[in-house]
Amino acid sequence: VNALPLIALLTDFGLEDGYPGIMKGVIAGIAPQARLVDITHLVPAQAIATGAWVLYTAWHYFPPGTIFLCVVDPGVGTSRRPVSLYAGDRFFVGPDNGLFSYVLSSVSESRGPVQAVELNRAQFYLAPPSATFAGRDLFAPCAAHLAAGIALEDLGMPIDPEGLSKSAAPPPPRFSRGRLFGAVAHCDHFGNVITNFGSRLAGRVLESPNSVLTINQKPVSARAATYAVGPEGEPFLLPDSSGHLAIAVRNASAATWLGGVLPGTRVVVAGL
Amino acid sequence: VNALPLIALLTDFGLEDGYPGIMKGVIAGIAPQARLVDITHLVPAQAIATGAWVLYTAWHYFPPGTIFLCVVDPGVGTSRRPVSLYAGDRFFVGPDNGLFSYVLSSVSESRGPVQAVELNRAQFYLAPPSATFAGRDLFAPCAAHLAAGIALEDLGMPIDPEGLSKSAAPPPPRFSRGRLFGAVAHCDHFGNVITNFGSRLAGRVLESPNSVLTINQKPVSARAATYAVGPEGEPFLLPDSSGHLAIAVRNASAATWLGGVLPGTRVVVAGL
Amino acid sequence: VNALPLIALLTDFGLEDGYPGIMKGVIAGIAPQARLVDITHLVPAQAIATGAWVLYTAWHYFPPGTIFLCVVDPGVGTSRRPVSLYAGDRFFVGPDNGLFSYVLSSVSESRGPVQAVELNRAQFYLAPPSATFAGRDLFAPCAAHLAAGIALEDLGMPIDPEGLSKSAAPPPPRFSRGRLFGAVAHCDHFGNVITNFGSRLAGRVLESPNSVLTINQKPVSARAATYAVGPEGEPFLLPDSSGHLAIAVRNASAATWLGGVLPGTRVVVAGL
Repeated sequence: VNALPLIALLTDFGLEDGYPGIMKGVIAGIAPQARLVDITHLVPAQAIATGAWVLYTAWHYFPPGTIFLCVVDPGVGTSRRPVSLYAGDRFFVGPDNGLFSYVLSSVSESRGPVQAVELNRAQFYLAPPSATFAGRDLFAPCAAHLAAGIALEDLGMPIDPEGLSKSAAPPPPRFSRGRLFGAVAHCDHFGNVITNFGSRLAGRVLESPNSVLTINQKPVSARAATYAVGPEGEPFLLPDSSGHLAIAVRNASAATWLGGVLPGTRVVVAGL
Repeated sequence: VNALPLIALLTDFGLEDGYPGIMKGVIAGIAPQARLVDITHLVPAQAIATGAWVLYTAWHYFPPGTIFLCVVDPGVGTSRRPVSLYAGDRFFVGPDNGLFSYVLSSVSESRGPVQAVELNRAQFYLAPPSATFAGRDLFAPCAAHLAAGIALEDLGMPIDPEGLSKSAAPPPPRFSRGRLFGAVAHCDHFGNVITNFGSRLAGRVLESPNSVLTINQKPVSARAATYAVGPEGEPFLLPDSSGHLAIAVRNASAATWLGGVLPGTRVVVAGL
Repeated sequence: VNALPLIALLTDFGLEDGYPGIMKGVIAGIAPQARLVDITHLVPAQAIATGAWVLYTAWHYFPPGTIFLCVVDPGVGTSRRPVSLYAGDRFFVGPDNGLFSYVLSSVSESRGPVQAVELNRAQFYLAPPSATFAGRDLFAPCAAHLAAGIALEDLGMPIDPEGLSKSAAPPPPRFSRGRLFGAVAHCDHFGNVITNFGSRLAGRVLESPNSVLTINQKPVSARAATYAVGPEGEPFLLPDSSGHLAIAVRNASAATWLGGVLPGTRVVVAGL
């Protein structure tokens, strides 16, 4: 048992209604010694892909053993499975709806085995469970029981990690006829547009002197090492803090400048 | 003395200006061992009724002994009394302006005695007190002293709990000529509209096959067990996570769909 | 070493993207016993002056020894120095870009020596450092090492505190030909407009029966001891919770009422 267990929370519950606080109250009753850290509660309502991305950029900065309590759950009350995973030396608790897409992909590339259970044991739920707030009634108490020392394999029925949903990530980047095709993975608070080109592809694009990225029919060819040294009044390419290739506009929102960009918007790079 | 005291905060201070953080700094100086959990700081400015509702849905999910530090206080600096209560095995600290309306009503139905004091002892204030920020100067230090082991009866002058304000809750639902009259208690982050019909009345409405709820002159008769299985493009009734009867629209805001709904908006059910 | 070190965070990272949570994850890996309190993460993007003001109103309410981790950093990746200070019995970590302007001014008036280092020792960074997210890669780990017991003088190279930037504060108030000239320092969540007239000048304005403040060509002469007793439908002067002279409108935003007010907007008082 960890003497100072850490639970990190990520939801789309917003901050007005007290729902994250209610989950923390439930946790405090089961695992009073758990430390609680918010990743975000402002994932847009039901935006599984955004939640999956934010979790991906955050999880490996937390210490091994951290329990990630993640609830973006448009299918609450339906047949999507509530699950808990052990992957990359951390624990994850939430719905099996794609929210763990990026985590599972990155772990499978590098970090060995993943263990998974379906959270089907009512003794770890808050009684009586409601049909509409699984975060409070099911996910928070299960995460708290993990923090309090219950083993993952005792929390629920073992399931095949290969069957876990990875549906929230865009298809991996691909080359076709000399061009690189990808997609926007995330637009952040500052309006920076982050692509699904990871550090290896990002390096290749940035180091190719003639490469041009096109998004929303607009070409982007300027580049910079960091935000403050980019050109004025023009979008430019740079490596995001996650290592991914990003598009920024100095002192402005690139997402707005580019005429409206969303997760999934296509990007193409020529001249590589 | 609780080894791990827990203070849960609820205010209308917003998150821009650092006011909740300042209260936590004050608490850390008096009760360094206290754990701190935010319920919300986004109660609309001075909206006592909203604060009272959010507190009501949250408080009983926190462990016994929790101290609720609640500041929605349009009357700061005037004669409204600063109070602390012991009710339902938890402590509450804040202004006596209706913020504890629902808590007091639900406790009086079920849970035995309520104890109350007026926070009139300056030795527990932060010196010198300002006229405009009682959260920092009075309520936070008093909550922290409770967490640090001061007994409620030593924090202030005993007052009659019967005299505490319950003015923020709508009048209780009533039947008249075969119809059930009530009001909207809260509209949440997702736009779900929550009525003041508690679980017993909610069950009766949902189980009556011919019942129709009317709000803003719009009839609502569809119903569902949970959000994801409701009909498309039409409002429907369901039990909220608090047990109350709620109105939702799938993948949309019911509050907007119904032409603008606010706490206090009337609802009527016929066909029971 | 403090048994319960406290780190207070102030940034412009917003709450959507998980950046504050990532910093906390980094801290938890280095200083698991540190308590974490958010001051705000909603400083407007790159608004150093606003961040400096919010820090100023907050810092002295935290206990001695508190570590303030402050990141409003438009110059990330450029030559602005990353620094850590010991001032007024607290520690501060962040960019040397004016963010500590008010803290340094108020400490120099009253509290003795300031110690400062440039955070130039890579062994205290997170490896490998990125060019775009110094909060995660440099400031959070340095703050965590302070919390874990590393001495300030070991964290980096000593620098002259006199050379630290104080550029974010408006010029001090001044009298000229019988009138008092100053500026708006901050507009808060409620729309209250807070000037850079501190408690001494605020007292003098409020106690002069004929004084009139002018802002955006609008005269303000009414005054009140607190928000709830101000006149209706008219701006009035009162002492803010920070002791500074403020302008409020009852149940409304003074900043809006006065035709748009920003930090730096000029104010003039006649009739003193």
